[in-house]
Amino acid sequence: MKSIESVLAFIVEIEKLKAVQRKTRPVGLQRYENSAEHSWHVCLSALMLKDYADQPVDIDRVIRMLLIHDLGEIDAGDTIIYASETPELKEEEETGLKRLLAILPGDTDHYLALWREFELGESADAKFAKAIDRVPPLLHNLHGDGHSWRDHQVPKEKVFDLNSRIGDGSQALWAVLKKQLDGAVEDGLLK
Amino acid sequence: MKSIESVLAFIVEIEKLKAVQRKTRPVGLQRYENSAEHSWHVCLSALMLKDYADQPVDIDRVIRMLLIHDLGEIDAGDTIIYASETPELKEEEETGLKRLLAILPGDTDHYLALWREFELGESADAKFAKAIDRVPPLLHNLHGDGHSWRDHQVPKEKVFDLNSRIGDGSQALWAVLKKQLDGAVEDGLLK
Repeated sequence: MKSIESVLAFIVEIEKLKAVQRKTRPVGLQRYENSAEHSWHVCLSALMLKDYADQPVDIDRVIRMLLIHDLGEIDAGDTIIYASETPELKEEEETGLKRLLAILPGDTDHYLALWREFELGESADAKFAKAIDRVPPLLHNLHGDGHSWRDHQVPKEKVFDLNSRIGDGSQALWAVLKKQLDGAVEDGLLK
Repeated sequence: MKSIESVLAFIVEIEKLKAVQRKTRPVGLQRYENSAEHSWHVCLSALMLKDYADQPVDIDRVIRMLLIHDLGEIDAGDTIIYASETPELKEEEETGLKRLLAILPGDTDHYLALWREFELGESADAKFAKAIDRVPPLLHNLHGDGHSWRDHQVPKEKVFDLNSRIGDGSQALWAVLKKQLDGAVEDGLLK
């Protein structure tokens, strides 16, 4: 009973992810996206794109990774990926994740390990999860007049360079998105 | 390539779930919750509560169920559970889900079957998923001055009656929540 109460406390605490504002707006909405709805979006996106992973992936592990991948932002906040992922920021996120996991009963080290695996981005599951994590922000910009690229003055070279990591998880997916980005350059959305 | 483009179109289309407003406010937030962030919340809640399911469940199936369980609301909208789940509404949601699945390449009947299994609520996985789906709205009310019970004039009998279905998935979880609801009655939050 006591342990269920701890899980319920965790469930209330992680609700704060719904207040973490990201840097892009969902297609068709005027407000910015939050990290909780983004987490749902990438989980379902991963499920629907699983057959295009270059290496065999355990999609259920990928989904678990994506369910927890942004929890560290509750304490650390969301940072635009083009502002570079510093070791300091990652450490802050890890500390935040540990604080949350400490609310749960029992051993939660496997969740910390899963988060670190995602961050490291070396396993097949992590490469695919990280590739999927990049997809919605690109779609938001592609279908939203490049608003985030423009707001943060991100040059096209940086957009292509950073998102080419999608190809580490799925070359086919990156090929399609690269073509769409080429179109955005042609249309003047991305400069 | 063509099929990846279809999945990307699906990913953009389901983004509309972020605009479906629910009837409770997340703890600590003034705005109402949307069905996309709710979907993330219940997936992670299910994962953390899996050990308390009364019958053995396939947690990865439960998570997939919960990832898609509200997609029908994109066309049908969200309805407060106390307003009763009519066959007409469920049919509208199913039609909406079918419209979305038709955007995807390949055979998607297994997703429709999974959604119907959830709605039916008879399998162990569905019972547990449905139990978890009820948890956040209760916590929102318990930690938020019973705002949704009050706004919709839901009497305590209805709250206890409808949420007792949590016990169909986990007696232990229902026992803890029932106790918290009893406390809400004592405190005058629930009348």
